[in-house]
Amino acid sequence: MPLLRLLPRRAWAALLSQLLRPPCASCAGAVRCQSQGTRDLSPQHMVVREKILDLVISCFKRHGAKVMDTPAFELKEILTEKYGEDSGLMYDLKDQGGELLSLRYDLTVPFARYLAMNKVKKMKRYHVGKVWRRESPTIVQGRYREFCQCDFDIAGQFDPMIPDAECLKIMCEILSGLQLGDFLIKVNDRRIVDGMFAVCGVPESKFRAICSSIDKLDKMAWKDVRHEMVAKKGLAPEVADRIGDYVQCHGGVSLVEQMFQDPRLSQNKQALEGLGDLKLLFEYLTLFGIAEKISFDLSLARGLDYYTGVIYEAVLLQTPTQAGEEPLNVGSVAAGGRYDGLVGMFDPKGHKVPCVGLSIGVERIFYIVEQRMKTKGEKVRTTETQVFVATPQKNFLQERLKLITELWDAGIKAEMLYKNNPKLLTQLHYCESTGIPLVVIIGEQELKEGVIKIRSVASREEVAIKRENLVAEIQKRLSES
Amino acid sequence: MPLLRLLPRRAWAALLSQLLRPPCASCAGAVRCQSQGTRDLSPQHMVVREKILDLVISCFKRHGAKVMDTPAFELKEILTEKYGEDSGLMYDLKDQGGELLSLRYDLTVPFARYLAMNKVKKMKRYHVGKVWRRESPTIVQGRYREFCQCDFDIAGQFDPMIPDAECLKIMCEILSGLQLGDFLIKVNDRRIVDGMFAVCGVPESKFRAICSSIDKLDKMAWKDVRHEMVAKKGLAPEVADRIGDYVQCHGGVSLVEQMFQDPRLSQNKQALEGLGDLKLLFEYLTLFGIAEKISFDLSLARGLDYYTGVIYEAVLLQTPTQAGEEPLNVGSVAAGGRYDGLVGMFDPKGHKVPCVGLSIGVERIFYIVEQRMKTKGEKVRTTETQVFVATPQKNFLQERLKLITELWDAGIKAEMLYKNNPKLLTQLHYCESTGIPLVVIIGEQELKEGVIKIRSVASREEVAIKRENLVAEIQKRLSES
Repeated sequence: MPLLRLLPRRAWAALLSQLLRPPCASCAGAVRCQSQGTRDLSPQHMVVREKILDLVISCFKRHGAKVMDTPAFELKEILTEKYGEDSGLMYDLKDQGGELLSLRYDLTVPFARYLAMNKVKKMKRYHVGKVWRRESPTIVQGRYREFCQCDFDIAGQFDPMIPDAECLKIMCEILSGLQLGDFLIKVNDRRIVDGMFAVCGVPESKFRAICSSIDKLDKMAWKDVRHEMVAKKGLAPEVADRIGDYVQCHGGVSLVEQMFQDPRLSQNKQALEGLGDLKLLFEYLTLFGIAEKISFDLSLARGLDYYTGVIYEAVLLQTPTQAGEEPLNVGSVAAGGRYDGLVGMFDPKGHKVPCVGLSIGVERIFYIVEQRMKTKGEKVRTTETQVFVATPQKNFLQERLKLITELWDAGIKAEMLYKNNPKLLTQLHYCESTGIPLVVIIGEQELKEGVIKIRSVASREEVAIKRENLVAEIQKRLSES
Repeated sequence: MPLLRLLPRRAWAALLSQLLRPPCASCAGAVRCQSQGTRDLSPQHMVVREKILDLVISCFKRHGAKVMDTPAFELKEILTEKYGEDSGLMYDLKDQGGELLSLRYDLTVPFARYLAMNKVKKMKRYHVGKVWRRESPTIVQGRYREFCQCDFDIAGQFDPMIPDAECLKIMCEILSGLQLGDFLIKVNDRRIVDGMFAVCGVPESKFRAICSSIDKLDKMAWKDVRHEMVAKKGLAPEVADRIGDYVQCHGGVSLVEQMFQDPRLSQNKQALEGLGDLKLLFEYLTLFGIAEKISFDLSLARGLDYYTGVIYEAVLLQTPTQAGEEPLNVGSVAAGGRYDGLVGMFDPKGHKVPCVGLSIGVERIFYIVEQRMKTKGEKVRTTETQVFVATPQKNFLQERLKLITELWDAGIKAEMLYKNNPKLLTQLHYCESTGIPLVVIIGEQELKEGVIKIRSVASREEVAIKRENLVAEIQKRLSES
């Protein structure tokens, strides 16, 4: 076993355990998972992803956003105490001398750090990048330890609710554009949540902990959430029950009006501010033509610590369960909110820059689209090759190389087989299996006559054209198709 | 200081030291570095990057490559003993329970691991992604601890030198396309390097170490490399001098012929194999029309352990030093080679998959292009907004919101100010400073007459058009510009 010299024994053990581990649910067959909770993205995955990301990014650009990027890791201290109960999921780097670093947990905190460090007071930016969380790998339904986030944020002091409304408009445009089926965006306000806690009798010190519990209402029944609040977080049962009355409420702008009249909530200054902003928000949403997609929902709390105002979360109302398609439960597909205090935490003088933003849950969307394609038996091409260079004769490598150079140099996407003497059938079969639409064929006859044959793979029709017209003819055909 | 509660003292110290640290050379002014040796990429950086990456990726696609991605971290064992002397630069993750992980050091080893784990025997793929190396931060001239790699590789058993020649063709297409000035690609073969070592009398156990020294010839003078080989690596001085005679040689295909006749080298089987392949390679390069860009260079060694055959490295021959432009010394801008043994190292049975590939040194290219733009005073737009929605009147927010919705819904990139009552001059100034070409203006008069004014920012001409023709008129103007 000379190979043993090349790989340390420990690596062998790791590799073997990888190979013996059953393939994970969502990548059965094609791709086996690599380190736990992560996976390789095959060309099939990537093509679907790139199409979805293109749509998302073009929407962000339509709304005037710039793009930026930050490093994969941040100083550990920058990320500490920003994420509430989930902070334990951060990946730390080993201390190899130097600073203590952690992999970024989201794109929002690095953005806030960037604004503060560069004293940027106003910015509309998007950011598409990987983030990492050490969650126990539930690799079904698109939850991985490494995943992609697509964020859009508006930083700056502006008149109230205009940027907030635009964020909701963007979520609607993206979810409509992706044709994922009907969706609803739940909206609430952190000040209403906190006001509700206050008037129900939650001690202020428990606000964030109870907020985390409420946030689980989309995955857990009320009675379990109530149990967590009472038994684990020490909330008085009658307080929990008062909260229970509120969190059932959801509706349109009329619910906002109703809450203004609520005998308890209307006594709370914070809640009134939140309600006032929501009323204005609904006015703008109506002008944007999306008010019917938005539901004011008192059960929406959002887990992250840094929100200070409007919060929102988009859910798919139903995934079209066609014959044979498994019902999907994917949770929220987009979310966000206002965080006016985060930038100030990174500024030595505490100068605040108000921000509002959204994150598209692209991993879940990738999963839904892939499942749907699987059900429909849809296949995607993983290359964009337009022309294949073939020959029916032996010893024609030189001519093929000259021909393909002409195509490449004209910007045409072209391939050939890396064989000296491939069979014509093998070459044509390659085109059919990879979806290449055109073949150009050169043989002795063609060389003698100064022509090239062009073959349409779909129709199998062949025509001979003059060699010097080749590029023009191919460009014509490609522009027509 | 209520803020102190929000940020632990350690975070403050870290932040302050960041803020007090002088900005790094290459991002002076705009962007301050974050954790040592990394940096944020501002919209200005990103726009330049995306243009360059678009060109690189479109070339990879022109040659029929699929795209894939792998996780940012790998099992540490996968990366161990693949990178020669530089392995110490790997970033390890902290052991937080579970597997030992490291950030990927390049994209080649993860690709080989992917092929082996998925039993893929044939694949032409590209991969654009970040990699991380704990180099002492020399953040001048585009060397960072986090950087982007753009790799293209062809895996599979094919007839000799056809894929290898295509890799060189791709490097030429990309470097020509980027208009970086004249360039040269040095070519050699690991078997010729090893054959040269053997006939010069290097003990086989020292091959890789001496190879690492030779690899430094582009940065160090021969006498310093010789000193390292003799004093640090224990090579006999006369052996070093014999190597010295060879590594001076560079030339075209005629040098290949000459080396076939070399009394010592022609006695070495490995070297002869390498020379035979290079001869064939030059034949194909001539057919591709790029032979004059390629130089057979016996001083080229490449530091990485995994190369087994042809190796290559592209260097810019001169950077056009126009008046005021600083002379640039950027080293190699693209490199690669054949690595036939790497995939087999990850296969339990040692099954080999021959591979050849290339990596574009995009960070250095970003740096060159940015420097050039700086010298020329060129500015890039960081948004793509086509139309700005303005009003000269107070209380026109509602109309502006309705108008911009029409534009967004028609796919037009549009912005407006997030103010209830902005001044017209402020609005027009925003368009001029951000490069938005068109303004649509709505006021009382226009509303009454059912028209909208369209203003060209460049010419300051204004025309009134019917409101219902707005989208069509804007699309027409945008398609004409």
